[in-house]
Amino acid sequence: MNLNSELLDIAKRARKAAYKMVEISSDLKNHILQQMAKILEEEKEYIKRENKIDLQAAERKGLSAALIDRLRLNDQRIKEMADSLREISRLNDPVGEEIRAWKRPNGLVIHKVRVPIGVVLIIYESRPNVTADCIGLCLKAGNAVILRGGSEALKSNLAIYQVLEKITKKYKLPEGAINIISTPEHKVVNLLLKMNEYIDLVIPRGGEGLIKEVTKNSLIPVIKHYKGICHVYVDEFANLNMAEEICFNAKVQRPGVCNAMETMLVHKDIAVRFLPHMGKRFIEAGVELRGCPLTRKILKGIKKATEKDWITEYLDLILSIKIVDSLEEAIEHINTYGSHHSDAIVTDDYSNALRFLNLVDSACVYVNASTRFTDGYQFGMGAEIGISTDKLHARGPMALEELTTYKYMVFGEGQIRK
Amino acid sequence: MNLNSELLDIAKRARKAAYKMVEISSDLKNHILQQMAKILEEEKEYIKRENKIDLQAAERKGLSAALIDRLRLNDQRIKEMADSLREISRLNDPVGEEIRAWKRPNGLVIHKVRVPIGVVLIIYESRPNVTADCIGLCLKAGNAVILRGGSEALKSNLAIYQVLEKITKKYKLPEGAINIISTPEHKVVNLLLKMNEYIDLVIPRGGEGLIKEVTKNSLIPVIKHYKGICHVYVDEFANLNMAEEICFNAKVQRPGVCNAMETMLVHKDIAVRFLPHMGKRFIEAGVELRGCPLTRKILKGIKKATEKDWITEYLDLILSIKIVDSLEEAIEHINTYGSHHSDAIVTDDYSNALRFLNLVDSACVYVNASTRFTDGYQFGMGAEIGISTDKLHARGPMALEELTTYKYMVFGEGQIRK
Repeated sequence: MNLNSELLDIAKRARKAAYKMVEISSDLKNHILQQMAKILEEEKEYIKRENKIDLQAAERKGLSAALIDRLRLNDQRIKEMADSLREISRLNDPVGEEIRAWKRPNGLVIHKVRVPIGVVLIIYESRPNVTADCIGLCLKAGNAVILRGGSEALKSNLAIYQVLEKITKKYKLPEGAINIISTPEHKVVNLLLKMNEYIDLVIPRGGEGLIKEVTKNSLIPVIKHYKGICHVYVDEFANLNMAEEICFNAKVQRPGVCNAMETMLVHKDIAVRFLPHMGKRFIEAGVELRGCPLTRKILKGIKKATEKDWITEYLDLILSIKIVDSLEEAIEHINTYGSHHSDAIVTDDYSNALRFLNLVDSACVYVNASTRFTDGYQFGMGAEIGISTDKLHARGPMALEELTTYKYMVFGEGQIRK
Repeated sequence: MNLNSELLDIAKRARKAAYKMVEISSDLKNHILQQMAKILEEEKEYIKRENKIDLQAAERKGLSAALIDRLRLNDQRIKEMADSLREISRLNDPVGEEIRAWKRPNGLVIHKVRVPIGVVLIIYESRPNVTADCIGLCLKAGNAVILRGGSEALKSNLAIYQVLEKITKKYKLPEGAINIISTPEHKVVNLLLKMNEYIDLVIPRGGEGLIKEVTKNSLIPVIKHYKGICHVYVDEFANLNMAEEICFNAKVQRPGVCNAMETMLVHKDIAVRFLPHMGKRFIEAGVELRGCPLTRKILKGIKKATEKDWITEYLDLILSIKIVDSLEEAIEHINTYGSHHSDAIVTDDYSNALRFLNLVDSACVYVNASTRFTDGYQFGMGAEIGISTDKLHARGPMALEELTTYKYMVFGEGQIRK
């Protein structure tokens, strides 16, 4: 059997499983998630052994220490995976929720009801914990899932999958409910992306290169979790102490994540009062500053920011700074150079706050708070599969509800169209 | 200037306009829609003159009478276009609607608010009225629109656009709010489909070939309005009189539309009682019947249905019939061969009704009603841009609300992440 028909078989089995999974009760799903958490911890020695093979290969290949660290599974990280599954088991089940119901003049009663999407393909790089997280989230939302992890984590991902599969078998989930593609061939991804007849959604989780390649080749709808070029705009009417705390938090608290600030915009009228102390604090915290010409007149000696800086996600202790003439210029800068992820204004002016909220075209817009709150847990939505920078279907934190769609259930008594 | 940079200019202008359109009040949008309706009727002679050029070209090219009829604009059809714009002006404005709001333990208040999608590209064949409808719907939902109609209706589409543009100019809508691409070159579409940086959504309205080509080439998310292979399943516990009325309505009332029935499924235990009279009524109405082997034992002399019939959207007075052993077989047939559009069960059995609603994976599932109700107006949603057979973002009738997305507006008082 060739590779394509093997993959097709997996996709078809997942499709069939998905048709049945809508019927599984929340109680059973939650119990399975709890059991999955338990077995992950019970089988941790096996998982660590398989992980070690990946780690050794990574060392032989000379991967960076940071990458090798992300790959490593220890007792603590396995416990975190298990805890995450337990957490998912405690979240509300979105399937079956009634979004709206109404009665038509002809007596038809229409219910708009949340249902699973069907078959979700997840293509991911990096951390093996994604394997368990995605299985848990997709299962809870009633979806069949096909996983395709990175080659460097092949053994680890497969081990986690095999351990969790014992539970899906024990509780007789439909065959095909959870799937992993473990053949190393690179072309697997492009073959899967053509199977739009059986797969409903693809979520690429990884770097820009991966996301662009998936978008280019996919016949299946894609939800992109793209980069975060997030801004904080310090308005002329800002409380400058608050602005300093928010900007510092947005940049420094965890610089390597997508909701960290990459560019700080400062109104010209408060720049001379705000920037010296703020700049000093950043520099003391080890932040490299890059400024526009006006900024560099106030913060002497910092690097020059170029056009490229405005579109760069540093994911690091680097910050670009621009002084703007007006709220409008700040908004235009954000809409032009940003990634429509998370942006904040610090202001005490009512109308500037509202204009910023309305006119900045981003998934999450903040007044007087740090962009670092864009996160499923922080929003109270629970575990998330990522932060969508797309506008369709899911925008911002993508949690259980965003892993569902809806259908219209229409109750009649013999109505026909006139 | 080459074609690609010309198109890029249009896309960029639309993007800029979209950023401003979120601020336009409902009152102004509704007034503009009313004025657009008025000017369409005032300028009908001009529109008919331009339409005549298209009609003459179509005749020279030897297009079918049906196609030429769809292309024709007369006083009645221009009035219908105007009435449709008036109707859109009376619908609720979805922009700004609060979907949900909640407060977090740290005091952050999160509002999930409906906002325009941004820039919508519509690629359509056939009827020129689509030009006015799409401009009206996109404008009301706060979106900038780029229209690309079929070459056979070029002059008609352009005339309608030019007339409506007088109103957008008079009321100073942002330049780029409405756009039409009138260069005849075919490659225009593929060039536009790569402009995902500026265009948020593409909706192809036309045949299977158009939709497949758009899906294959687009970097922009696509919402597909695909074919409707709709089923009515007559259960063993059906009221047979009701079943006959529903099936007749679903097939005969308007066979050329996507929500008409193409395959009738009949439970084996009632087939002998149900099929003879039903079949007679269909044949008297001029419906060509094609049956499975068991059906042909009851309805002697009808054609044989092949595998191909189960996946064919006839859009005509043709019906395929299959006798099934069980509810489960009916559901499996629908999920396997259907297009996930609209499917109905006729039954008096409570549990069969619920199982059908839950397990049939279609946008609209009916109990005891005709599939012909899948329609924005019939659902009470107003004018629609199509019936989505996709599962993401919009499923089923796609009206104003489905032409919006949402953003999270977060109100803080200085919160930072711990």
